[in-house]
Amino acid sequence: MEVVQVLHMNKGNGDTSYAKNSTVQRKIISLGKTIIEEALLELSSNYDIDSMGIADLGCSTGPNTLSVISQIMDIVRATSGHLRRRVPEFRLFFNDLYSNDFNSLFMLLPAFYKMLKEEKGIGLAPSQCFISGVPGSFYGRLFPSNSLHFVYSFSSLHWLSQVPVGLESYAVKHLNKGKVYISKSSPQSVVNAYSSQFQADFSQFIKSRSQELVPGGRMVLSFLGRKSIDPTTEDGCYQWELLAEALMSLVKEGLIEEDKVASFNAPYYAPCAEELKVEILKEGSFIIDRLEAFEVDWDGGAVADTHNEQGKMMVGERVAKTIRAVVESMLESHFRLGQDTMDVLFSKFAEIVGNHLSKTRTKYINFVISLVRKASHINLEAQPMDVFLF
Amino acid sequence: MEVVQVLHMNKGNGDTSYAKNSTVQRKIISLGKTIIEEALLELSSNYDIDSMGIADLGCSTGPNTLSVISQIMDIVRATSGHLRRRVPEFRLFFNDLYSNDFNSLFMLLPAFYKMLKEEKGIGLAPSQCFISGVPGSFYGRLFPSNSLHFVYSFSSLHWLSQVPVGLESYAVKHLNKGKVYISKSSPQSVVNAYSSQFQADFSQFIKSRSQELVPGGRMVLSFLGRKSIDPTTEDGCYQWELLAEALMSLVKEGLIEEDKVASFNAPYYAPCAEELKVEILKEGSFIIDRLEAFEVDWDGGAVADTHNEQGKMMVGERVAKTIRAVVESMLESHFRLGQDTMDVLFSKFAEIVGNHLSKTRTKYINFVISLVRKASHINLEAQPMDVFLF
Repeated sequence: MEVVQVLHMNKGNGDTSYAKNSTVQRKIISLGKTIIEEALLELSSNYDIDSMGIADLGCSTGPNTLSVISQIMDIVRATSGHLRRRVPEFRLFFNDLYSNDFNSLFMLLPAFYKMLKEEKGIGLAPSQCFISGVPGSFYGRLFPSNSLHFVYSFSSLHWLSQVPVGLESYAVKHLNKGKVYISKSSPQSVVNAYSSQFQADFSQFIKSRSQELVPGGRMVLSFLGRKSIDPTTEDGCYQWELLAEALMSLVKEGLIEEDKVASFNAPYYAPCAEELKVEILKEGSFIIDRLEAFEVDWDGGAVADTHNEQGKMMVGERVAKTIRAVVESMLESHFRLGQDTMDVLFSKFAEIVGNHLSKTRTKYINFVISLVRKASHINLEAQPMDVFLF
Repeated sequence: MEVVQVLHMNKGNGDTSYAKNSTVQRKIISLGKTIIEEALLELSSNYDIDSMGIADLGCSTGPNTLSVISQIMDIVRATSGHLRRRVPEFRLFFNDLYSNDFNSLFMLLPAFYKMLKEEKGIGLAPSQCFISGVPGSFYGRLFPSNSLHFVYSFSSLHWLSQVPVGLESYAVKHLNKGKVYISKSSPQSVVNAYSSQFQADFSQFIKSRSQELVPGGRMVLSFLGRKSIDPTTEDGCYQWELLAEALMSLVKEGLIEEDKVASFNAPYYAPCAEELKVEILKEGSFIIDRLEAFEVDWDGGAVADTHNEQGKMMVGERVAKTIRAVVESMLESHFRLGQDTMDVLFSKFAEIVGNHLSKTRTKYINFVISLVRKASHINLEAQPMDVFLF
């Protein structure tokens, strides 16, 4: 499976689309908003920027995509007004993998430009706004050197650039049998393969951004992780544990081959704070301004009683839909399931999730990291350790 | 009809897709290649550029899109090598309207980046290539000031930003009855509406580009026009005359309402050289380096004998497919035809075109203009008139 060509959120506007099933991501965005605001205030107060380059890495397509950028522009406008400075020209870049539904995103732009002009006066001289789509993997260079002032990424960095090296071939499928991610039963070699892939990817990410951001530029990253150092801890992997359970129940029904499950490993990793710090410090060009962890309900915090059957089912279905909108493209590519079998899989998954949540309210751990690009390259030793607020 | 939201080449890769039916456009590109080469040689020889901004305006989606940019990079690489300079970093921008099939274009990029790296060594440090998609109308600003070095546009500028003001409402539908563009039978008011719309659009285009291109920057524009000052001349409008004939024959068969034909006016204009010069001189920031006109066969110059029935049919069908790939989105939006009626329409059109071409080999007139952005704003009077090579 070529992650850079396969992974994308479900397209369009239908019942299983990402656009209609991204409540959890919206919740996560609202948690990150204060930290974005703080970072932008620092940036706008310290620098008088004529033309501000802002990139959304892993933008996907949906109402969330434009609402975040709109809030960012509001903050910059307000700060400029407060400091009696001209509102900068905005250069906005929406990045995601090649297979992302950019068409749907671009069709939202005429209305977005109209709103910017009418409600915010952006688009009238001298304040302009230039929007472009930048397809490609953020685990490599995407932008010219020193061209960006602010970078943010929501709910994307837990995706690896590929299935971990060593686990991607059919030959090693016995290694993680019946599982699709790190599990209590996974051998150490599986855990190592995952953490090595994360280190390689995350360090590439940090290195690429350090070249693209101007000195003093800011970056706010929000993605799933885990609290404990132990990678088999429930908050870091249990959604995959239950998805594996659903897949295996379809194996029993003869709808999926067991070999196919054995050879599937999700290109995903939920790191802990220590792993993040190590890679950022090693690269050396960013100061960690904030590193915070939030608990997020699997269903985005919608209130529902999981003590009765109906409530369990509702919650289970909501969670299943959210996860389906995100992982379906990957499952489709590996398992080659028809629409019917996919429906059976996710209704089984909904049931399993509902049952699980009625017993334990497992939550996601979501990190929000705020980073500042240093003015000059300082190595690990030179970096003060007390900037960590975690 | 909102042109900026409706007009797009037929999507995907099927039998009626633009990707499969763009032979004429490929022919036109090859005619423009020498002029592009000349412009790039001038640009690269006169300026040592670290990071070169290149934009394709009206890029559409298909094999033509990436082959042109690839040739452009070859020329720049060769010139850099010849002058013993470093190959610049490339910032490539693909622009088209919001409804263009950017998804298909972006899916071609992984293979394109791979080819650049393996065959041309671009993508390996220090020579990088950054590609983005910029959706929006080129009859307005698309890029930050002074951010581009080379702009080109193929087979796009004959599309107006909208149906000419004054012809877009149902109330005036009697004005150009039974026709879909300027015709011998059109009243002067229709001709005037079209030429005014062209002037407004083209001057906006030139003005926007003059702000985006660096002084000394180059622009090569290639699009359909006409030889004569008379806008009803056959080479400027006869494909529309025959399309109107096909539409009217479907009216007779009761498949289309006559009113719908009466109220349809194509957002298209084939200017003559004088009209182009006037707008360019009026705006004042470009020098016209070349302005050439080429004749192009309606079927892209494929050899076929139109003296027998089979040959006529073949040519007719080829031309009809080429035009269908380009105008179908517009017809769909206005006439709301089902796929079956659309098929009937274009098979009728193919027949009419075949018959016409067996009698007269009407050709398209294609302009190629090469422009240089002046270092400072010079008005009409200051511009030497002898630069016109037309």
